[in-house]
Amino acid sequence: MDPTTRRSTPRLSRPDLRADLGAGITVAVMLVPQAMAYAMLAGLPPIVGLYASVAPLLVYAGLGTSRQLAVGPVAMVSLLTATGVGAIAASGTDQYLAYAVLLALMVGVIQIAMGLLRLGYLVNFLSHPVLSGFTSAAALIIGLNQLKHLLSVPIPRGHHVHTIVLEAVRGLPSANMATLAIGLGAIAALVAVKKWAPKVPGPLIAVGGATLAVWLFGLGGAGVKLVGDVPPGLPRPALPAWDPVAVRQLLPIALTISLVGFMESISVAKVFANKHGYRLKPDRELVGLGAANLASAAFGGYAVTGGFSRSAVKDQSGARTRLAGAITALGVAAALLFLTPLFQFMPNAVLSSIILVAVYGLVDVAEVRHLWKTDRVDLGLLALTFVATLGFGIEQGILAGVGASMIVFVARRTRPHFAVLGRLPGTEVYRNVNNHSDAMREPGVLALRFDAAFYYGNVTFLEDTLRRLEADEDGPLRAVILDAAAINSLDSSAVHALEGIARDYQARGIRLLFAGVKGPVRVVLERTGLDERLGKDNLVLTVCDAMDALGAPCPGETAANGGAA
Amino acid sequence: MDPTTRRSTPRLSRPDLRADLGAGITVAVMLVPQAMAYAMLAGLPPIVGLYASVAPLLVYAGLGTSRQLAVGPVAMVSLLTATGVGAIAASGTDQYLAYAVLLALMVGVIQIAMGLLRLGYLVNFLSHPVLSGFTSAAALIIGLNQLKHLLSVPIPRGHHVHTIVLEAVRGLPSANMATLAIGLGAIAALVAVKKWAPKVPGPLIAVGGATLAVWLFGLGGAGVKLVGDVPPGLPRPALPAWDPVAVRQLLPIALTISLVGFMESISVAKVFANKHGYRLKPDRELVGLGAANLASAAFGGYAVTGGFSRSAVKDQSGARTRLAGAITALGVAAALLFLTPLFQFMPNAVLSSIILVAVYGLVDVAEVRHLWKTDRVDLGLLALTFVATLGFGIEQGILAGVGASMIVFVARRTRPHFAVLGRLPGTEVYRNVNNHSDAMREPGVLALRFDAAFYYGNVTFLEDTLRRLEADEDGPLRAVILDAAAINSLDSSAVHALEGIARDYQARGIRLLFAGVKGPVRVVLERTGLDERLGKDNLVLTVCDAMDALGAPCPGETAANGGAA
Repeated sequence: MDPTTRRSTPRLSRPDLRADLGAGITVAVMLVPQAMAYAMLAGLPPIVGLYASVAPLLVYAGLGTSRQLAVGPVAMVSLLTATGVGAIAASGTDQYLAYAVLLALMVGVIQIAMGLLRLGYLVNFLSHPVLSGFTSAAALIIGLNQLKHLLSVPIPRGHHVHTIVLEAVRGLPSANMATLAIGLGAIAALVAVKKWAPKVPGPLIAVGGATLAVWLFGLGGAGVKLVGDVPPGLPRPALPAWDPVAVRQLLPIALTISLVGFMESISVAKVFANKHGYRLKPDRELVGLGAANLASAAFGGYAVTGGFSRSAVKDQSGARTRLAGAITALGVAAALLFLTPLFQFMPNAVLSSIILVAVYGLVDVAEVRHLWKTDRVDLGLLALTFVATLGFGIEQGILAGVGASMIVFVARRTRPHFAVLGRLPGTEVYRNVNNHSDAMREPGVLALRFDAAFYYGNVTFLEDTLRRLEADEDGPLRAVILDAAAINSLDSSAVHALEGIARDYQARGIRLLFAGVKGPVRVVLERTGLDERLGKDNLVLTVCDAMDALGAPCPGETAANGGAA
Repeated sequence: MDPTTRRSTPRLSRPDLRADLGAGITVAVMLVPQAMAYAMLAGLPPIVGLYASVAPLLVYAGLGTSRQLAVGPVAMVSLLTATGVGAIAASGTDQYLAYAVLLALMVGVIQIAMGLLRLGYLVNFLSHPVLSGFTSAAALIIGLNQLKHLLSVPIPRGHHVHTIVLEAVRGLPSANMATLAIGLGAIAALVAVKKWAPKVPGPLIAVGGATLAVWLFGLGGAGVKLVGDVPPGLPRPALPAWDPVAVRQLLPIALTISLVGFMESISVAKVFANKHGYRLKPDRELVGLGAANLASAAFGGYAVTGGFSRSAVKDQSGARTRLAGAITALGVAAALLFLTPLFQFMPNAVLSSIILVAVYGLVDVAEVRHLWKTDRVDLGLLALTFVATLGFGIEQGILAGVGASMIVFVARRTRPHFAVLGRLPGTEVYRNVNNHSDAMREPGVLALRFDAAFYYGNVTFLEDTLRRLEADEDGPLRAVILDAAAINSLDSSAVHALEGIARDYQARGIRLLFAGVKGPVRVVLERTGLDERLGKDNLVLTVCDAMDALGAPCPGETAANGGAA
């Protein structure tokens, strides 16, 4: 068995230490180039990505509940940062950097508050198709935004796909060929390593090779944009500048990052918690991530969360405890202390290549194909989210998707499946007469099963269906039996409707019985006094008992006055 | 039996004709003052209310499906008209009148389109608490907006409650005492007639008395505002002026009126259709109402719908066919031809009194008390809608209520009720072990019932619950049985989650069985191929069959290898 499964109070053994050391260093090797690339995607100097990869990791190692989760800069949160901060400041300015740090602080506060208020369950509102459509669109936006680095042509930041493509095509003749060569070469190398040597740290190879090439061939003079001079050393702690106007402007994106970042992180963490058989505490995870974001802001970094690819590497390379994350942080700190001189030869294009290869896998075509075959409505939700994200923006896309998911969920229940029931001969089992041609109906008695909670959205359908079925009967009805086994709940609109139905039937001498009312529904009936008004004799256990109460034959052990029809 | 119940192709008999004549005239007597009052509420000259009470009634008599529904100006639609048109033109101007007519045209087009597209079911999204909160708030706004007519002090139109109350109090010293006396006198008369002589047409008495008083005592000179000179005769048909900018500005309110007007109308029509045992066609009703609105616009009227109070009078006074509505229209036409000279002595205050008494009954305190005792969440929805309508406006109130209802509906299902099942001794019946202390569990087998559709909002809860219950077991599990009888549907997120759960169990040698999967869910399993991956042997009819498949004892007829435990 996996050694992580049995440990409830982690005490570090020597093999654990060795495993965490190896995993931590492996992740650090992967993280250094990725963090720089994602910071660039966020519109920030690459060094900020490294600042966001030290303190947050140490804090999460102390407060988080996942042992495999690798926290740090990720693509989605970087894109969201770029969208939010880009709307109120120009990339490259001090203001932009200050706002990005402020945003991380806000995300930290929001996530901790959400955790303390136990709001982790809000992620439940993000459905699978919405997440898939949103992720694919975001990946596309991220990818297209890299074209400017790859071609070295100026393309204004934005997410209007057609504008970006148009500008890229227009800029193609003036593209810097050396930059393009570095970018395409790096992509080829990354893809090749991924395919044929998955254990080799591709990003490190690509960055190392490209940096070497720039230095060897003096490509800095050939117009290749470089990361350039950065101050060596660790970031110093500082309070982010508080700006009430900016806070108000950044609030929507901060909420989005808090939720989407947590969603991504908890999904990844769950995969590995399931694999190793330990339990996560979602609300504690929120606090851990929030604290990591506060730490990031305190040390000049930007918003972070747990990402999939590095977590997978961390798990594969044998991380056993949360110490592995702390070791990764020390590795990044070492890079900050000793490797910064190399950055003056590191081309931006190679960082773009890393992003491009990373997000390519996020475009989820398989899900589209799957839903096309299985669920066209959910495919519609995916498509809506995808289009809205591309056309109107990141938060708008998520909001549209979440809203539409809710509408679809409610709408799908406005016309629930129902069945007229008949008795299978010789049994006390009642089944849909349309599926069982031998099921026998009792004349003058309408036995019905509605497969849905009763709520405001389907009370009209319920009323109409009862009336229509009554009109379709050959003779007058003497009783209606509602099989309530599938009625999982009852809201106040439904209570009103049932009262009206019962009153109408009473006035016309038709008896209304409920069979198999479940606990939660019974509670509502009692609290509203509807059980009294329906008559307690009319609440029975099974459809067979209801027939019994009507004096209709229903053989079997529960029928006191039985006898076959 | 009621004579209306048996008629499918209406052929007019002599008694029918006589009944319809009486009912039609009774409603006309009620309608003339009400229509003028509601037009005033809509910010329009009172005569416009009469224009809206001829052609629409004739058209609805031809196209509608309800025999008792009385179409014409109503309070809610009048308020909505005032809100919408008041935002883009000043009351009393020609522009205001033109926009009100244009709005009726738009409502007509929208309702006909909704009817043809079968969108009548959209009203399902308006839950009972939302309607109740919205109606109470609207009644309050309507009532407060009458204060200016009753006191004869200038209060700017609006729906900020505190502003209106403040202005009214501030205007009290300068109130016109004659106007106030007329208003209070009319209110007293209306309430008295309603209570002690419900068959007497109160509005007619009040209007007649007030007009007589003005004429006798020459109150027009005492500062009492009068309806004044109006051109006698029927409205002449004319095309409403088309104004694309105004159309765009009026669109939200036109959609609201279309929906709310239809909602009010269909609710009223249903009451009487149920009472007399005939069926309505909701989509045809929409077309009928839409055509009535087009007719209103074509003859210089404003938006109309079917209202409750006049429909009740129409029913009580014996209307049998849709001819009654046509007779009412002729009555109003007669008033337009012969009674307009009286309007120069008719005080506005008496019309305000009619509105006040009419809307007083709309404030639904009983529902608040009822929900306080029975359903605090739905009470919250009512309160939210009420506050949002008062604080932010009519459409905003409805939108907030509808949105919140959906969120609550989805949220209530994120943590569904579930039960661990045990067998009742000597039976094959499985019940909640928490409710039945004698229910016996099979060691190593977890039988569970979830009382909810599986969808994106509760997959996390499902996963977490399964994991938690497994951890709470004394020994390792060999099988999990999900009783699927209460699972009414399965969306694509739930399919993904079930696949993950099944894969996880398979990897750990735990068998997963589903008992009693229903038709709609079975279809999803087949279409997604999940039934194959779960293994068709694992889809059984009952929990007992599942135990059987596991070789665990379950006595009874379905257990082939039975034998008591």
